[in-house]
Order: sequence, then C-alpha cells, then structure tokens
Amino acid sequence: MTSRLYGAIEAGGTKFRCAVVNGRTEILSEVRIPTGTPTNTLDACVKFFDSVQASLGELQAFGIASFGPLDLNRRSRTWGRLLVTPKRGWTGTDLVSPLSDRYSKPVYIDTDVNAAALAEAQLGAGRGCISVAYVTVGTGIGGGAVVNGSPLPGVPHPEMGHLRVPRDPRDSFAGVCPFHGDCIEGLASGPAIAARWGTSLDQLPAGHPGGSILGYYLGQLAAAIVLILSSDCIVFGGGVMRNGALLPHIRYSAGHSLAGYPLSPVEDRIRLPALGENSGLIGAALLALGSGEAK
Amino acid sequence: MTSRLYGAIEAGGTKFRCAVVNGRTEILSEVRIPTGTPTNTLDACVKFFDSVQASLGELQAFGIASFGPLDLNRRSRTWGRLLVTPKRGWTGTDLVSPLSDRYSKPVYIDTDVNAAALAEAQLGAGRGCISVAYVTVGTGIGGGAVVNGSPLPGVPHPEMGHLRVPRDPRDSFAGVCPFHGDCIEGLASGPAIAARWGTSLDQLPAGHPGGSILGYYLGQLAAAIVLILSSDCIVFGGGVMRNGALLPHIRYSAGHSLAGYPLSPVEDRIRLPALGENSGLIGAALLALGSGEAK
Repeated sequence: MTSRLYGAIEAGGTKFRCAVVNGRTEILSEVRIPTGTPTNTLDACVKFFDSVQASLGELQAFGIASFGPLDLNRRSRTWGRLLVTPKRGWTGTDLVSPLSDRYSKPVYIDTDVNAAALAEAQLGAGRGCISVAYVTVGTGIGGGAVVNGSPLPGVPHPEMGHLRVPRDPRDSFAGVCPFHGDCIEGLASGPAIAARWGTSLDQLPAGHPGGSILGYYLGQLAAAIVLILSSDCIVFGGGVMRNGALLPHIRYSAGHSLAGYPLSPVEDRIRLPALGENSGLIGAALLALGSGEAK
Repeated sequence: MTSRLYGAIEAGGTKFRCAVVNGRTEILSEVRIPTGTPTNTLDACVKFFDSVQASLGELQAFGIASFGPLDLNRRSRTWGRLLVTPKRGWTGTDLVSPLSDRYSKPVYIDTDVNAAALAEAQLGAGRGCISVAYVTVGTGIGGGAVVNGSPLPGVPHPEMGHLRVPRDPRDSFAGVCPFHGDCIEGLASGPAIAARWGTSLDQLPAGHPGGSILGYYLGQLAAAIVLILSSDCIVFGGGVMRNGALLPHIRYSAGHSLAGYPLSPVEDRIRLPALGENSGLIGAALLALGSGEAK
C-alpha cells in the first residue's frame, strides 16, 4: 500500500519551509525559501509542490503554520489571510488560496505556535499531557497551545509575547516592542538582547547576568500560562532557546514566582522541544493530516 | 410530558447553594446552607435533595460547582475531592460521594468559575463567543473559562487570581496573599480592599483613587487573559463587582495595557455577568444536564 502524501508549510518572516510528508509525518522532501514578496514566496512554494507531485504523486491536503497575526475565523470572509503585520508587504496576504486554487484539495491553517504545540503534544515533549503550550523565543516571542488535542481557538488567537510582567529589580532596560516597550517580547526577544547587550545570548561572557534576567521574564510568562491555562507542559523553543542554557533560569523563576501554587512542582512542566526545530513544520503536517487517513 | 429534574450545588467558602432545576435550567426549588463542617454541610445538601425528590420526583443527575483547589482528573483516585485548601477542615473532602452513594446517579463537578463561565457562555453575556472567561472578584479572586463550549481542562485547573502583574505606580500596598503578597488576589480581593482602606469598595468616598487602582490591576488580568487565552468575552462577577462601578476602570486599564493589541477593541470584550449572582449555580445545573436530555 502506498501511503498518502500531504503538503506542509511553515511560514516565517525570514524563511518559508515547505515539506511533503507521508501519513506518519515522515518528511520525504523539503525546501527552504527565503521570505521575499508574497507573490514570489508563494510562487516558489507552489513550484516545489508541483515538482514533488510530479515525482512522488498526488498530495491529499495541505497544512500551513504561519506567523501572525492571522484571521482564523472560518466564518470570516478573510479567513486564512494575514492581518495587519509589521512584515512589509504582507498585510492582507491570502496564504490559502494559492494552494486551494491550484490543487483543489483541503487547506488547513493555524499559527506557527499553535501548530508547534500540536506537534509537541502528539509526538514530542508534551505526549500524554492534557494542556500543552508552546512558546517561541526568537525574532519575536509568541505562544500557542493545544488543549485536549485541539489547538486553542480564540479571537484572533493567543499573543502571549505581548504580556506585561513585573520588572526584574536588577534591570531598567526600556524594552524594544513598538507597541508596549517592556512587554516580554520587548524585553527578552533576540532583538531585545541585541539592543541591550550588543550581541546574542550565547556570546555573553561567563558570569554575565543576561541569562538570569531573561530567565526571570520568561519564567513570569511560564507562571502566567500555568495560572491562566493550567498547562501541564510548556515547551520553550526558538533561536534564543537553542542551546538550552536559559531553561534552568526559566524554571527557577517560574517556581519562585508561583511560590508553591499550584500544588505540583512547576519546574517539571517547563521543557525544551523534543522535535528540535521541526515542531512548526511537523505541526503543519499534522494540520494537513487532520483531513486524511492515519490520524 | 414531565421535564426531567437535576440537582445543582454551588459550593462556596461561606455558603452552599443547592437547587433543583428542570431541563431548561429553570430553578424549581433552592436553599442556601451556611458552610460549616464538611459533614454538616453535605448532610444538609442531601436533606434538601431528599425532600425535593419526595415532592417533585426523581433527580436524574447532579452538578457541583465548587471552590478549589479541586482534583478534576478523572483518572485520579481522588477525583472530586478538595485539594489542600486554607478553608479549615475541608482539605481532602470528597464532594461527589455523598451524592453518588445516596442517589446512584451521575455526578459532575468543576470549579465554580469554570461552571460560571459555562453558564455565561451558553445563556449569558458570552453567548455566541468562542472563548469565554469568567473572573470572580470577592473573598478571593479566581478565573475559569469555556472554549468552544467546554470548560477549560488543565492540571489541576486555572488559578488566575494568583497572577503577578506590574504594580500601579500610585500604589505601594504590600498585598495580603499568604502565598504571593501582591498577586492580583493579594491586591484587589475583598480582604485586600478591607486591609488597605479599612472598608469596602462601595463605602469609599467620592474621588477616592481605590476604584482606579483596583481597575488597574484587574485590567492587567483581563489583558493577560486576552493575550494567553484570546478570549472574546471576559465576564467579571463576584461581590466586589456587584454595583458595576469597577467595569469602566477595568476596561480602560486593559485597553491601555494592550495598546491596540490584538486588533479589535478589548473594551467590548469585558462585561458584567448577565446571570447576576446565579452564574455559578446555573453552571452547576448545566454540568448536570450534560448527562441528560435537552442540552
């Protein structure tokens, strides 16, 4: 028996990753496309899927895990489009139609972080958990969640990176978020790190308080997710998390902030992604599979 | 046709409200029992249901909306029991067995605030919304939510009242939460108001900054719920909210904190309960109805 094939896109501000997977979400073919104009980028995606179809066979459905903000309301006329985004030229871009028009197959879409949470919940660090959140710490900070197996719906969707938290008393940095200044994204994203210390986290000298300060803020976010969503697994991924050095700082800060509330130790809930850099892409594939066999 | 009957309990730290409702959640009979020892209190509940059964007929199922923390994990040996609670004598109390043992009917249980969110989502201020949160501001502060029609599950369940938020620069009150000091509950609950100003909110003189300060903190909580849960309706109920005076302060603070993020005005999402003081009790009835006819 030939396994069915599915298309997956992880749409990011820097690059689009496209893949074709089988019903077990094994990646059979993959390409990385630098994010250019919407037309150029989406044309390149279609070209990739065309070529794979020609060699491997028909794709049954597509899943898109995208940066936001997105219109995810199925009753909306602009479902599947990017809402107002600082990413130049992309506001209003329809991510779905280029695929659905060309292939006449179902196209599913969710945020990159909801999709990553789905992948970690089904196949990664959150297996067996009831409520799995995924936070990416990179160029921006964003969060999504999967509850009882389904991505968390909302209007329009979570924007966890813009949470305001109490300030670390050691730190008076004003923050770089153009909307909020010192929200989490303004304080702990890659650009925030570059703006305050002139380099990336992994280039800071030994003994630098950067890890502890960033961990303080990200731990407050983890604590807020525990208190509001009661997630039993919170995965921290993205470029800033890559070497894992922040994890103990985040765990310590969250535990200290919660002070024994709720009752089980929160440190165990805070984890690195088991799927490495593939959580979002595998999540997109799982969205596509939602329509097909072998779920 | 005779409508089926259901039992509902709203279990609170001060009183237990018991009711018998029909399949349209109309309250046919109700009693309020001051919260004493677990045995006395639960005996009085059973006595009430016994007497109503004798006059109106058999009850088909029971719903309990309780103060917490609760064990809501159906796979746990201690499902339906109170976890460690500051309420003297109640830690470990089994709320379910006194009903299930006596009546041999299904008993459903959730937090008071998840149940209240369910009632407001189905019948109240959150009708037509995808994600409805309910925050009670009273002796304590707690929050629950209903997403796509189902109470938000988690481990053990949301504890929104213990969120830490940035401090109002006008305010240096240390807070009264025994766990966290100046979490939301420590700053804006009834006991916090009494401790800092020696009276209740509605007794403060005209021009007193209390409403604005409390609204600042509760608005931060509303903003956090929008960012993490992306709820399109957040209902604020409970004794401190009773006259509605805080609502504009909360709306202003949440809007200011979010600074245009997400895109739609957040003020419209923040509402008073449409079911008044009955949200929790009606929610308990809806839990019971989940097992029966006429959902």
